Amino acid sequence: MSLHHIVIDAYDLSAQARFWAQVLDWTILSEREREVVIGADENASVGICFMPVTDRKMVKNRLHLDLAPGPDGRDAEVERILALGARRVDIGQSGTESWTVLADPEGNEFCVLRPKKTLIA
Amino acid sequence: MSLHHIVIDAYDLSAQARFWAQVLDWTILSEREREVVIGADENASVGICFMPVTDRKMVKNRLHLDLAPGPDGRDAEVERILALGARRVDIGQSGTESWTVLADPEGNEFCVLRPKKTLIA
Repeated sequence: MSLHHIVIDAYDLSAQARFWAQVLDWTILSEREREVVIGADENASVGICFMPVTDRKMVKNRLHLDLAPGPDGRDAEVERILALGARRVDIGQSGTESWTVLADPEGNEFCVLRPKKTLIA
Repeated sequence: MSLHHIVIDAYDLSAQARFWAQVLDWTILSEREREVVIGADENASVGICFMPVTDRKMVKNRLHLDLAPGPDGRDAEVERILALGARRVDIGQSGTESWTVLADPEGNEFCVLRPKKTLIA
């Protein structure tokens, strides 16, 4: 058994797929009226699939994605993602955490982590 | 920016981590009181991280995982996962879909897909 897709309910599949593809520097792999799939490339082991829903988001999601920043670091990545249409959200974090909590344009929470430590000899 | 973890809110981190590790044939990579991480191996690009919450699950999750069955096929995998503690759930599917909808022991919905087609010459 293998993990194939992370499926995210969406109102605007096209907009959500493009937001997340830009966040992750991924590609739109397939696009149909009721299913848009993005992934790092055709051979990526895990992709994200957007599927349509009509019910509104009511509570904090019980599943969310943690993203690891690239060489530019967390704060630069957060600014880049805010410019793509994300917003900062308060889900009760103290503000002293090492991660930053954001929400995508449809309100799905996600976190941008501190970069992994690089050991300097 | 890269996808690092899928984070799942949990009451019983240890039980949830073990359920999902068995479902995916993954390993417990780290286990602390407030964070248990599982992955295919130490070098896996994406893992699942279980973190504690106290609020109850109230609505269908807006994010869920789609799993692709191995060579034994969908129905055998579904039976195996039901025996691990999953249950079948009705989220409005018609029953004619190619996937089977299950929920983990804490109610998080997920789908087991039809195996990818194998071309036989």
